[in-house]
Amino acid sequence: MTDAEAAWQALKQHVGEIETLGSIGGTLGWDQQTMMPPRASKLRGTQQALLARLAHERLADPRIAGWLDALAASDDPVRRASVRNLRRKHERARRVPAGLVERLAHARARGFAAWLAAKRAADFARFEAELGELLELSLRRAEAIDPDRHPYEVVLETYDPGVEVGFLRELFGRLREGLEPLLAAIAARPQLPALDGDFDPARQAALHREVAAALGYEFAGGRLDEAEHPFTSGHGPGDVRITTHYERRDLLSGLSGTIHETGHGLYEQGLPHEHDGTSVSRAASFGLHESQSRFWENFVGRSRAFCGWLAERIEAHFPGAGIDAERLYRASNRVERGTRRVAADEVTYNLHVILRFELELALFERKLAVADLPEAWSARQREILDVTPSDDADGVLQDVHWSSAAFGYFPSYTLGNLWAASLGRALEGEVPDLWSQVGRGEFAAVLDFLRERVHAKGHLLEAPEIMREAVGERDAVADLLHHLWKRHGRLYGVEADAPS
Amino acid sequence: MTDAEAAWQALKQHVGEIETLGSIGGTLGWDQQTMMPPRASKLRGTQQALLARLAHERLADPRIAGWLDALAASDDPVRRASVRNLRRKHERARRVPAGLVERLAHARARGFAAWLAAKRAADFARFEAELGELLELSLRRAEAIDPDRHPYEVVLETYDPGVEVGFLRELFGRLREGLEPLLAAIAARPQLPALDGDFDPARQAALHREVAAALGYEFAGGRLDEAEHPFTSGHGPGDVRITTHYERRDLLSGLSGTIHETGHGLYEQGLPHEHDGTSVSRAASFGLHESQSRFWENFVGRSRAFCGWLAERIEAHFPGAGIDAERLYRASNRVERGTRRVAADEVTYNLHVILRFELELALFERKLAVADLPEAWSARQREILDVTPSDDADGVLQDVHWSSAAFGYFPSYTLGNLWAASLGRALEGEVPDLWSQVGRGEFAAVLDFLRERVHAKGHLLEAPEIMREAVGERDAVADLLHHLWKRHGRLYGVEADAPS
Repeated sequence: MTDAEAAWQALKQHVGEIETLGSIGGTLGWDQQTMMPPRASKLRGTQQALLARLAHERLADPRIAGWLDALAASDDPVRRASVRNLRRKHERARRVPAGLVERLAHARARGFAAWLAAKRAADFARFEAELGELLELSLRRAEAIDPDRHPYEVVLETYDPGVEVGFLRELFGRLREGLEPLLAAIAARPQLPALDGDFDPARQAALHREVAAALGYEFAGGRLDEAEHPFTSGHGPGDVRITTHYERRDLLSGLSGTIHETGHGLYEQGLPHEHDGTSVSRAASFGLHESQSRFWENFVGRSRAFCGWLAERIEAHFPGAGIDAERLYRASNRVERGTRRVAADEVTYNLHVILRFELELALFERKLAVADLPEAWSARQREILDVTPSDDADGVLQDVHWSSAAFGYFPSYTLGNLWAASLGRALEGEVPDLWSQVGRGEFAAVLDFLRERVHAKGHLLEAPEIMREAVGERDAVADLLHHLWKRHGRLYGVEADAPS
Repeated sequence: MTDAEAAWQALKQHVGEIETLGSIGGTLGWDQQTMMPPRASKLRGTQQALLARLAHERLADPRIAGWLDALAASDDPVRRASVRNLRRKHERARRVPAGLVERLAHARARGFAAWLAAKRAADFARFEAELGELLELSLRRAEAIDPDRHPYEVVLETYDPGVEVGFLRELFGRLREGLEPLLAAIAARPQLPALDGDFDPARQAALHREVAAALGYEFAGGRLDEAEHPFTSGHGPGDVRITTHYERRDLLSGLSGTIHETGHGLYEQGLPHEHDGTSVSRAASFGLHESQSRFWENFVGRSRAFCGWLAERIEAHFPGAGIDAERLYRASNRVERGTRRVAADEVTYNLHVILRFELELALFERKLAVADLPEAWSARQREILDVTPSDDADGVLQDVHWSSAAFGYFPSYTLGNLWAASLGRALEGEVPDLWSQVGRGEFAAVLDFLRERVHAKGHLLEAPEIMREAVGERDAVADLLHHLWKRHGRLYGVEADAPS
């Protein structure tokens, strides 16, 4: 065995163990948000802290540097990608003291419990201390990883490697500017009707299962459960769990949530699992992950053709509810400046992300104190979205992310929306009868496209390269604005206002 | 800090980590049997194997011997008990090679999946290879731990330390002998009526939750879910999960299962968790654990007074089902030689255990080949219980235990029945209005008795000592036979046949 071969075997064994620890933590995380008794929160913190420490020890293992060096000359694409992925993670891990890793894990478990209690009581004060600690520990961690870089850029790298603060400012600026004329045009027109009713959650669950299965999600290797804040947990080819949330009076919020998580689930199920244990079969980035969920939720799920198919499925589960294709299509695409990100439509959604991006940046630059966050949230939301949250639960506490110190995560949502738009334009160009297929409930062509261009690539390339190979060089902001003007311009009768 | 103090701190840190790894494996085990998608079985095997290896490495850590020596002179009861518990586990662990531990963990995960598939297909052949491997690995492990001891005694020690094969032979012999006249007397009398009906599982679930809560089980630190083979998973004060199985046509099998698991759950919730991380807050033995479940299931749960209370609760959940106290009491205590252990009544139950004990012994003494197990099962079941299983699912595949290499576990059930009988006689002597309280649905006196005499003792003493302190020196076989003759003698009108 050559040195390189021996290094590769050792590295695979090592990375396999780190991935197994990660999958254990993932399953416990899923359990925490779907099944765990409330009093187990302290124990869960101890468990996650131990797992985090064990994974960290392995990721920071000094032997890794030697293996990486021995493999530096490899031209096998899987090995090259593994080396690249592991080098970044190893460099980051070895700089963070084990004690800090463990404290963060503990703080995350406490943070989730505190956030849940605070949200239920609509009282930010109950979460303030925990959030403050999570922020402090995150800043200390960013400082340890690279004291010379903007700390927010360091946390961004966890989710979308290579994304810079300046790049996001520019991207988000162009997007916000492009959205304004569309929003103004829509605001001048009569509002589309929403869809009210009383929908039994058990029946919703049956409908959701049918929809997820129709899109291609395999239940033999998955589950659909309810969670406060829906998420997907993906581990290997056989354990990809999606979650959703049923609202009795709002059929569409749960449905779009399930279609969204199904998109995540399909990506996880379609990753190149033959490379499990090499890091290459993991998602390339959070932004790319999000492009998959957004693609299904918005590009497919809110299309006229899909609404035609879905209306029939709804009728089968809620006979006599009278939700026809047109009514469903209009309700699915109703644009409204609201307070809640997860309830936001396609047009205003990214404004919610921009709000969070700005606040996180201010927190990380110590220009905003945690105690002042609720007020800053309300003030900035009024400026950007022209709405005021009714209370903390409706405002600053609405998202789960900060409870697990997931600062820097939100921008991935908008990256996902942008990439989804480019994927959509490419797919439309390649499958001429796309919308007839979707209208018949046939999603194989859509899934095949995503499987081939995105899922099967795993983390062989970095996300921006995967996108470049998938759709060519495209301006994603232009693609998204084109899509939004096309769909909403027609629905609201404002096509004439579109910029040329 | 003295040497002893430093050793105690190091030991606590170390044992705490082992317990945390165990609790993680326990939660994954719960998930496997209640929630996990079928395709995740391979990954779950990898996860459990890693956890088992990590725990084993820590349990076999050579530093432990030094800490134990430094603490040998301690007269603090918690430290003394910790030292005793850890010494046994450390001695066992350090003799088993890590590779064997990992192979067993993998074989267990495969074994469970194979057993489930085989049971569903009622085809032992689908489980034979996995069972053969589990047996071989278990024998190899017993040999590694102590080549000079009977290998079955080595596995018994996992569940009930200090129980010897000869002791069990004598105990089970006396018990079988004592049960024969009672069974003969009952067989000569008209059978009591069973309870048939159609009971919606969702309503059963609501009833079960109410019953478990009434007995004192705390849902804020627990859950009740459905599993193929009900079990309880207990970790710390905050995460004690019970499971059950609902049968549409058989209300009582599920209910007695839930009362049984509630007994396990109450024990776990009542352990002295202030000593978590020292091994002292763990159950003292499987037999003692089982005494708690049996006590509630049989002594309380099948009593006339309890049936009076329960009949009212059933009426509330199944209005008009017409299940009155007397009908419920008679159906709950119907004695019938059947094929299935979990469906067995109080009188025949221990004969099912004796059957398994004999077969396990034969497998461990290599007097019986795995391939011949189904035939041996049927033949021996005819001799002992006078019944023949209808197929493998009804016979040799009915229990989950062997799928996880839990050989030597079954005797704990009968130890539990025996100890429960002694606890019952002691409680009756101490609480004169016991049955009036139970009839009113008041279980605090029962729970207080168990909390004080058993639960709060944790693993400070070994199980037989806990029992001796709890009830004094008693002949448990005599106590159980007394209880069975008293209850069933009256119900079947055969009191006159009781031995004096």
